[in-house]
Amino acid sequence: MSEFPTRLEVEDLHQNLLEVQGKLARKSESAELRATLDKLHPADVAYVLEALPLEERQLIWNLVKAEREGEILLELADAVRESLIATMDTKELVAAAETLEADEIADLAPDLPEQVVQDVIRALPQEERVLLRAALSYDEGTVGALMDFDQITVREDATLEAATRTLRSLDELPAHTDQLFVVDRVERLAGTLPLARLIVSDLTRLVAEVMVPESVKLRPEDRAEDAAQAFERYDLASAPVVDLITGRLVGRVTVNAVMDHIREKSAETQLAEAGLSKGEDVFAPVWNSFKNRWAWLAANLVTAFIASRVIGAFEGSIGKLVALAALMPIVAGIGGNSGNQTITMIVRALALGQIQASYWAKLISKELGVATLNGVVWGGLLGFATYLLYGNVALGGVMALAMLLNLLLAAGMGVAIPYLRARFGRDPAVGSSVLITACTDSGGFFIFLGLATLFLL
Amino acid sequence: MSEFPTRLEVEDLHQNLLEVQGKLARKSESAELRATLDKLHPADVAYVLEALPLEERQLIWNLVKAEREGEILLELADAVRESLIATMDTKELVAAAETLEADEIADLAPDLPEQVVQDVIRALPQEERVLLRAALSYDEGTVGALMDFDQITVREDATLEAATRTLRSLDELPAHTDQLFVVDRVERLAGTLPLARLIVSDLTRLVAEVMVPESVKLRPEDRAEDAAQAFERYDLASAPVVDLITGRLVGRVTVNAVMDHIREKSAETQLAEAGLSKGEDVFAPVWNSFKNRWAWLAANLVTAFIASRVIGAFEGSIGKLVALAALMPIVAGIGGNSGNQTITMIVRALALGQIQASYWAKLISKELGVATLNGVVWGGLLGFATYLLYGNVALGGVMALAMLLNLLLAAGMGVAIPYLRARFGRDPAVGSSVLITACTDSGGFFIFLGLATLFLL
Repeated sequence: MSEFPTRLEVEDLHQNLLEVQGKLARKSESAELRATLDKLHPADVAYVLEALPLEERQLIWNLVKAEREGEILLELADAVRESLIATMDTKELVAAAETLEADEIADLAPDLPEQVVQDVIRALPQEERVLLRAALSYDEGTVGALMDFDQITVREDATLEAATRTLRSLDELPAHTDQLFVVDRVERLAGTLPLARLIVSDLTRLVAEVMVPESVKLRPEDRAEDAAQAFERYDLASAPVVDLITGRLVGRVTVNAVMDHIREKSAETQLAEAGLSKGEDVFAPVWNSFKNRWAWLAANLVTAFIASRVIGAFEGSIGKLVALAALMPIVAGIGGNSGNQTITMIVRALALGQIQASYWAKLISKELGVATLNGVVWGGLLGFATYLLYGNVALGGVMALAMLLNLLLAAGMGVAIPYLRARFGRDPAVGSSVLITACTDSGGFFIFLGLATLFLL
Repeated sequence: MSEFPTRLEVEDLHQNLLEVQGKLARKSESAELRATLDKLHPADVAYVLEALPLEERQLIWNLVKAEREGEILLELADAVRESLIATMDTKELVAAAETLEADEIADLAPDLPEQVVQDVIRALPQEERVLLRAALSYDEGTVGALMDFDQITVREDATLEAATRTLRSLDELPAHTDQLFVVDRVERLAGTLPLARLIVSDLTRLVAEVMVPESVKLRPEDRAEDAAQAFERYDLASAPVVDLITGRLVGRVTVNAVMDHIREKSAETQLAEAGLSKGEDVFAPVWNSFKNRWAWLAANLVTAFIASRVIGAFEGSIGKLVALAALMPIVAGIGGNSGNQTITMIVRALALGQIQASYWAKLISKELGVATLNGVVWGGLLGFATYLLYGNVALGGVMALAMLLNLLLAAGMGVAIPYLRARFGRDPAVGSSVLITACTDSGGFFIFLGLATLFLL
């Protein structure tokens, strides 16, 4: 249970921001602003910070109570979190981190200076220190990184009454406790006991009789994405994490951690596809934005330059028939669009595990079929438009044929690129759009200008 | 609780598919295949169906038990679901739908023939029929469409002991019951009683004393996206849905429904950005794929055609200096890439509510700053490369200046397009990539060829 009153209505979120902005604009007393912030949920303070430009953001951050800084940092978007951490000194950062639990500190750790992490580890009690070391040892994108240590365990040979007594002694259960984890004498997971089942069962029965013996088990090394798919498929609220060798329970993953992961991943994908290395603070300084964007622009410039040299090789042909210059971007463009459709569909199906090795041939023949249909329809249309514009039948024919061939190239590469990348163990999604566009641009110019040189000049 | 044994390990999912494929390949007895399918979770059967080509998929579908068809259809990706529904007759579909709960039937309804929906409504008991009518009345993308009716209510003046007795009389609680909803005499929501709090409290106390009085309330008309953000922010497992006017509890939303929604939305966005109208069955017939993709290709052809006419207007200049033809795609391309970076960042910040009306001026000046920096760096580089290639200082200068200007155009339009679309109540995300590319292509050709005509010829 949160100690802060949660919102009554969704719109209140925006209201909070306006209230803070209003007080900032009226230059209200700090005490008044601080009071407003104190009654907000950490996630809502994070939202307000993200929506404020740098100067106002820093003003508000200075008013946040020291003991809440940790939980608010956790809720912030990466780029904004970094900007605030950069303004804090080691002492402040250590104090903020110490208010958090081991798995939360581990989430924050990559953004903290090494010195701060060491200081925090030293300051923790022994038991927490072990957990933090464990949490820090898991790579991002694994179940270990999603895991927390708030699981409640019961012994299988206890009665439900004894289990209930144990729970009552805790006063309040950890957030997101929907089930207890049943372990044997040596802490090996034997099953799970959902609270909903505990409540409706006769208290004299044994845990072992009432528990769900077969449940989804995760391992710390599993990919977070696989865990997310398991949560979605089986509609889980929490799942135990078990050490593969010993069978011991090491932690649990909650659906809320999974949901955060899904959101982050989908944001990352969307940003990566548009060529942003990571989430950008809307109010970031120009230089930070430049750094976040330059790699993609540079990659595209290289491919555009290559395409330009392909055209350069045909300058003689263009000099004789200038219409070629006006028509060639159409051929290249449509190939790029169509190739991106193919590659997006295939990358997605690969991520969902829907493409088996035996079906690649089926896939490529289907994509070539779609490309042929597109080529006949759009190539025919544009070929005819070309004839109308320039009164040159042969030019129209070359246009139509070039479009068909470039669409076939796009389909072929749209299947081949993700296939080869997956085959060699790379993430098929990364940079697929740059690669396919490079093929269809240079390829499109080459096909069109080559055909024109062969047949028209 | 599911009646099917859930998987022990995540990898088993792929194993299931291989097992089914193996049996298909060995032409095993139907009975044996059916037995394999029967022991799979509905989501796993759905996975197997999605990963099989059309013929094999139909074979497997025919082996699925009639009473499981409904729950499996629910789990399938839209495109695959449609393909299977198309093969079923009215009687089969009605039987499948009748096995589902009202909110699930409503989820399926858009894909069912009107006749089937009418038959199902008629066949339902009165109470279920009212719920189904209600569920059908909510638009996709609203909280009403995410909602289910499995909430358990308790009266605020009951004791915890009485509440517990009520629960026991239910034998098993509905899936995802993490809290009870506390209502007054006229069914108005008074608060919520988390199971975790019920279990640790003294049973002689009153519900009203133990409940959480202030909780997040949703309304059926709220946007599903806002609800998803509330679940994320406040780490909810379920939330009550309340009628705005009467204050009565009408249903609940669970985190699992929210997670499905988030996944679907993010998939849709990703597909839409690549120009696919909706999720595509990898094994779809060529014609279906063509229909799913043509609109985007047509839109891009129109913009490419316009860009081509812009070039056509400068054919005289190109005839005199053919190098222009080779260089112009670089100017257009880099503008498109850079514009897409800007627009993606802004559309995302808008969706998260991070951009306030008062900060647009700040934003545009930042983006123009980034564009200027990009223009100086990349324009300078390419201008110099142009000079080296063609030995023409003026041409290099025109190249550099054109790149700078097109990047500024891209930044301006990258802010202006989402601003205007949001201003006029449209979704800023839809089609933003086509629009910005249209501007930077035609704009880039015009700027470059225009400058060249002015200064070089």
